[in-house]
Amino acid sequence: MFRPEIKVCDCTIRDGGLMNDSKFPLETIRNVYKALSAAGVDIIELGYRNSKEMFSPKKFGPWRFCDDDILRQAVEGIESNAKIAVMQDAHKAVAQDVLPKEESVVDIIRIATYVKDIDKAIALANNATDKGYEATINIMAISHAIERELDEALQQIEEETKIFVCYIVDSFGALYSEDIDYLIEKYRRFLKTKEVGMHCHNQQQLAYANTIEAIIKNVNYLDGTLYGLGRAAGNCPLELLMGFLKNPKFDIRPILDVIGKEIIPLQKTLTWGYAIPYMVSGMLNVHPKDSMEHVLLPEDDPEKYNFAAFYERLSEDEY
Amino acid sequence: MFRPEIKVCDCTIRDGGLMNDSKFPLETIRNVYKALSAAGVDIIELGYRNSKEMFSPKKFGPWRFCDDDILRQAVEGIESNAKIAVMQDAHKAVAQDVLPKEESVVDIIRIATYVKDIDKAIALANNATDKGYEATINIMAISHAIERELDEALQQIEEETKIFVCYIVDSFGALYSEDIDYLIEKYRRFLKTKEVGMHCHNQQQLAYANTIEAIIKNVNYLDGTLYGLGRAAGNCPLELLMGFLKNPKFDIRPILDVIGKEIIPLQKTLTWGYAIPYMVSGMLNVHPKDSMEHVLLPEDDPEKYNFAAFYERLSEDEY
Repeated sequence: MFRPEIKVCDCTIRDGGLMNDSKFPLETIRNVYKALSAAGVDIIELGYRNSKEMFSPKKFGPWRFCDDDILRQAVEGIESNAKIAVMQDAHKAVAQDVLPKEESVVDIIRIATYVKDIDKAIALANNATDKGYEATINIMAISHAIERELDEALQQIEEETKIFVCYIVDSFGALYSEDIDYLIEKYRRFLKTKEVGMHCHNQQQLAYANTIEAIIKNVNYLDGTLYGLGRAAGNCPLELLMGFLKNPKFDIRPILDVIGKEIIPLQKTLTWGYAIPYMVSGMLNVHPKDSMEHVLLPEDDPEKYNFAAFYERLSEDEY
Repeated sequence: MFRPEIKVCDCTIRDGGLMNDSKFPLETIRNVYKALSAAGVDIIELGYRNSKEMFSPKKFGPWRFCDDDILRQAVEGIESNAKIAVMQDAHKAVAQDVLPKEESVVDIIRIATYVKDIDKAIALANNATDKGYEATINIMAISHAIERELDEALQQIEEETKIFVCYIVDSFGALYSEDIDYLIEKYRRFLKTKEVGMHCHNQQQLAYANTIEAIIKNVNYLDGTLYGLGRAAGNCPLELLMGFLKNPKFDIRPILDVIGKEIIPLQKTLTWGYAIPYMVSGMLNVHPKDSMEHVLLPEDDPEKYNFAAFYERLSEDEY
């Protein structure tokens, strides 16, 4: 039996863009958008709407900025019932980059934030809702949040915004199911008028399992990506989530098809997916940046597979 | 806080042997045994004790048979507190291959069985306990078990054997956490005098999560393998399990070390780990044999990444 309230958001291009500086060919974006639409995915996030002052358009591809005209090119002529989302980083985006809703194909603006930047996030969320969009706030690195500060942030979100979903974002892939339960309960305690969402990373192979745990706890907004493409070990694989959800509107075949055509080829140059350096960072609850460097070491580097030494180094770094 | 009753069994050589016809160099076995012993793993399964009448020693390596003399060579001179296990397949092993305990380095004989072969399994388990070993029964392909038959098998195990653990074996990687809960409860209802064990496969990236679920439900016997090496998508990665268990006797470093030295190189020739064909078989709750063939297709085979067609074929095959 399925729960019709469940809404799946695909973040392949946005989170995957963290692995290739958001440099996807337009044709890839169109193929992904087409497949996700055919599969019945509810929300498709096509990238970041971050500031060109803070990210160089020379270094980063168009999906780091998602100008409205390129988004229009991305979706033009493709039949879809999905809502289009873009993400703004609270500390790396500006309100002026968001046009009034009538001038944009974007439906939802998702604001990603650390707890410490919650006031910036609220300002951007209010900018979005004032301009006619739906908005969400996605609290990143939640496994590092100081609890008293998180509580205060949630209270502010409840009182000061019109967002419709607030996401738990396990950026470091450090959470276990009992942490998921705990955080959902906390979110619910503060967010009386908002839905709770779940965005997981797969450092410890728990992204899908933790997403299922959230479903069991009545969370309705779920993030996934094609073949898990995303930062470090990646995200909850969308194809697994589709296999679990029973809503007959979902069709897994276009997803499997586009994974074979567009995502598998990316494996030649991008290194997401389970690997010991990612697992170590998840287990130690630290940012995966050192792990991301480590997996890029050349095959003949004697340190590449010296995982015990890597573990020692990451353990020491913490204090 | 840790639970001292928890016993971890490593099956790297045994389950991994399903991917290479149990052909590991003796030196690999010694290095793995040494690392697992240093890590504090409780039980180390070094292979199958299957019949040379049913498996050709020309085709299969020594760890498909685990003659007592080669086991002695494998462990000689290595300090260890671990118990040594071998597995007998109920339908592919014979009682005569088991010497009296005094003549063997083996401590535990694990009998793997389908529900339909339960009488063979009980005979082999009783043979093992009669000869002085500890024994377990591991019920494979549990997601295909007919419930009435499973109940009867469990009742027989309780009444007719002296085994100390009976394992839930999710051979097809098809179970979700709610299935795990259900089966544990069922096992407990019949097996008043036995411990419950958990052996998971990773087709849907749930092996580790389902093992944690079992821990939460007070299951004390847990299987894992180094870097998940095992049939199809593999098993619960031992390194993840070690990261979760808090018993100070466990040390993850020798495990990370031996993964880098002995397991990573196997990736050049063996194809375990998450892949769409495995995920499809797990989702459809079917044997991974078609998926195992599919992942071995050459890169230039046009069907290799035509995952939608593979899904269609596997879906049709079922009826």
